[in-house]
Amino acid sequence: METNPFNDLHEILSGDMETVDSLINKRMFSEQAPVIHELTNHLINAGGKRLRPLLTLASANLCNYKGNYHIHLAAVVEFIHTATLLHDDVIDESLQRRGRPTANLLWDNKSSVLVGDYLFSRAFQLMVETGSLKVLKSLSDASAEISESEVLQMSLARNLKVTNRQYMQVIRGKTATLFASACEVGGIIADAKASEINALRYFGEAIGISFQIVDDFLDYAGLKLNLGKNVGDDFRERKITLPVIKSLETKNSKTHEFWKRTFVTGKQNKYDFDKAREILETDGSLDKTRQEAIKWAKKAKLQLQYLPNGDMNNLLSDLTQFVVSRVR
Amino acid sequence: METNPFNDLHEILSGDMETVDSLINKRMFSEQAPVIHELTNHLINAGGKRLRPLLTLASANLCNYKGNYHIHLAAVVEFIHTATLLHDDVIDESLQRRGRPTANLLWDNKSSVLVGDYLFSRAFQLMVETGSLKVLKSLSDASAEISESEVLQMSLARNLKVTNRQYMQVIRGKTATLFASACEVGGIIADAKASEINALRYFGEAIGISFQIVDDFLDYAGLKLNLGKNVGDDFRERKITLPVIKSLETKNSKTHEFWKRTFVTGKQNKYDFDKAREILETDGSLDKTRQEAIKWAKKAKLQLQYLPNGDMNNLLSDLTQFVVSRVR
Repeated sequence: METNPFNDLHEILSGDMETVDSLINKRMFSEQAPVIHELTNHLINAGGKRLRPLLTLASANLCNYKGNYHIHLAAVVEFIHTATLLHDDVIDESLQRRGRPTANLLWDNKSSVLVGDYLFSRAFQLMVETGSLKVLKSLSDASAEISESEVLQMSLARNLKVTNRQYMQVIRGKTATLFASACEVGGIIADAKASEINALRYFGEAIGISFQIVDDFLDYAGLKLNLGKNVGDDFRERKITLPVIKSLETKNSKTHEFWKRTFVTGKQNKYDFDKAREILETDGSLDKTRQEAIKWAKKAKLQLQYLPNGDMNNLLSDLTQFVVSRVR
Repeated sequence: METNPFNDLHEILSGDMETVDSLINKRMFSEQAPVIHELTNHLINAGGKRLRPLLTLASANLCNYKGNYHIHLAAVVEFIHTATLLHDDVIDESLQRRGRPTANLLWDNKSSVLVGDYLFSRAFQLMVETGSLKVLKSLSDASAEISESEVLQMSLARNLKVTNRQYMQVIRGKTATLFASACEVGGIIADAKASEINALRYFGEAIGISFQIVDDFLDYAGLKLNLGKNVGDDFRERKITLPVIKSLETKNSKTHEFWKRTFVTGKQNKYDFDKAREILETDGSLDKTRQEAIKWAKKAKLQLQYLPNGDMNNLLSDLTQFVVSRVR
């Protein structure tokens, strides 16, 4: 049986994770507007992976933190992530999120925007309670980068000229920055050495990049059964992700015509997604994408040498491999 | 000629206001996503009144502040306000804001949500730069209250059972809290006495309540020419505001039928807005609303006795009367 370091982390940190869950439930409740709880409940208890808060707890644990504010920070990170999902739902008109209908379909744009704002504000209140300006700086910078890169992503949509560099800029901002901050604040709150906080930040960033590339890979290569997310979402929404960029880089005029028709013109028929998968498999783009994800997982692992040794370090090391295990 | 304390404030604080404007322009610029500047420019330079940042500067000035962070805080308050407007546009489908087409029509929901998030994050970054946890607490609490009360407002829409108390709860949250915080942080940054910070907070809250009631009054009683906002917006969007609540309190069965048809059922014909104005004028509801606005302006004025005397105090006193001058 294959080991699952993600489950191991959940088990080792289960006491803390329960406290995080109860803090999340307590703070998302609004006496004034009880409807908020119904909406966030749908998202927060929908069986999300809780990967980001887990990384915060693991980072604090790795740096031998003995206080209670790692709980706050884990909740903050999950709130920011959930707020982003809510606002993303308004935007993407994606039909499913974590295998359930999106909040946006159950409720409406109006609620998604406002409740996202509420969670975001709640996150800032929790941060302020930690009393750490360094934590506040890390997470407010992350928030600005997230929204900036979401705008960037939007402005690059349906544009076949998107470069590898621009793609990296987008996923760094929209995904990796929050992973980086989630890890970094665990070190900050534990008053770890500057070199350790730095290593945690780059560990988080690299594992976040790897995680997002895997996600983009699986949108073409995954099976519908294995994912909350629909396979083919990016294709239907005409988002240019790494597999397609790699295919465009081959400069094959026939496949270029295909991407132009399906992404720029937007004329997609029911056979096109299978055709897209076939192209990406045949011209090596999926394989190149896989290699890129593995490269970043290795970069994450390298940072662990600057962090305290022990069981937690080993688990995080296993986690870097586990993140890319889905692309093997 | 009538004096205009608002213009006087702008003149006295013009040096600071210019610095605020240049900070706003600098910080809303995004190297990664230049489209952000186009969108926010539309809103921030659309001739808004800048009342909130002006109150922050005036409060810091009143408490004899000598540093530079009041500039940051004034920009923060304007950013939060603008983010709220952007998200409100997604929501209300209002056709005009400050007399121009809303960002939402020029661009789309997607941009409004993301750019609102961007401004909100930028606001938090600016706050963090002040290094004051008290400032951060005041403004993060305000942000949570704003979104909470926007949700509350939404859940009360088209419901004739909305009470005076619930209406007050909504406008306190969505408008007065940011006014309160805008004034309070001016005192906090100036390291004013606790009693003064408290007075600034209640001054801001009361003037904010007064300001919002005047706005709701003018939505029925104003002339289209005098307002950026369309007269009749609240009526068309079926928002139950104070004038209508006052009318419902008269328990006249014929007018109750009218409000039920136009607000609950939503069957509005082209004569109905004029009919609504007539009802509110005749049954005394507009007059009661006017009195309520004046009451809160007086409450604001009373708080000024706990604050340092002098020209700035006098100007703020005049301002409380000026805010309600439009309902006279």
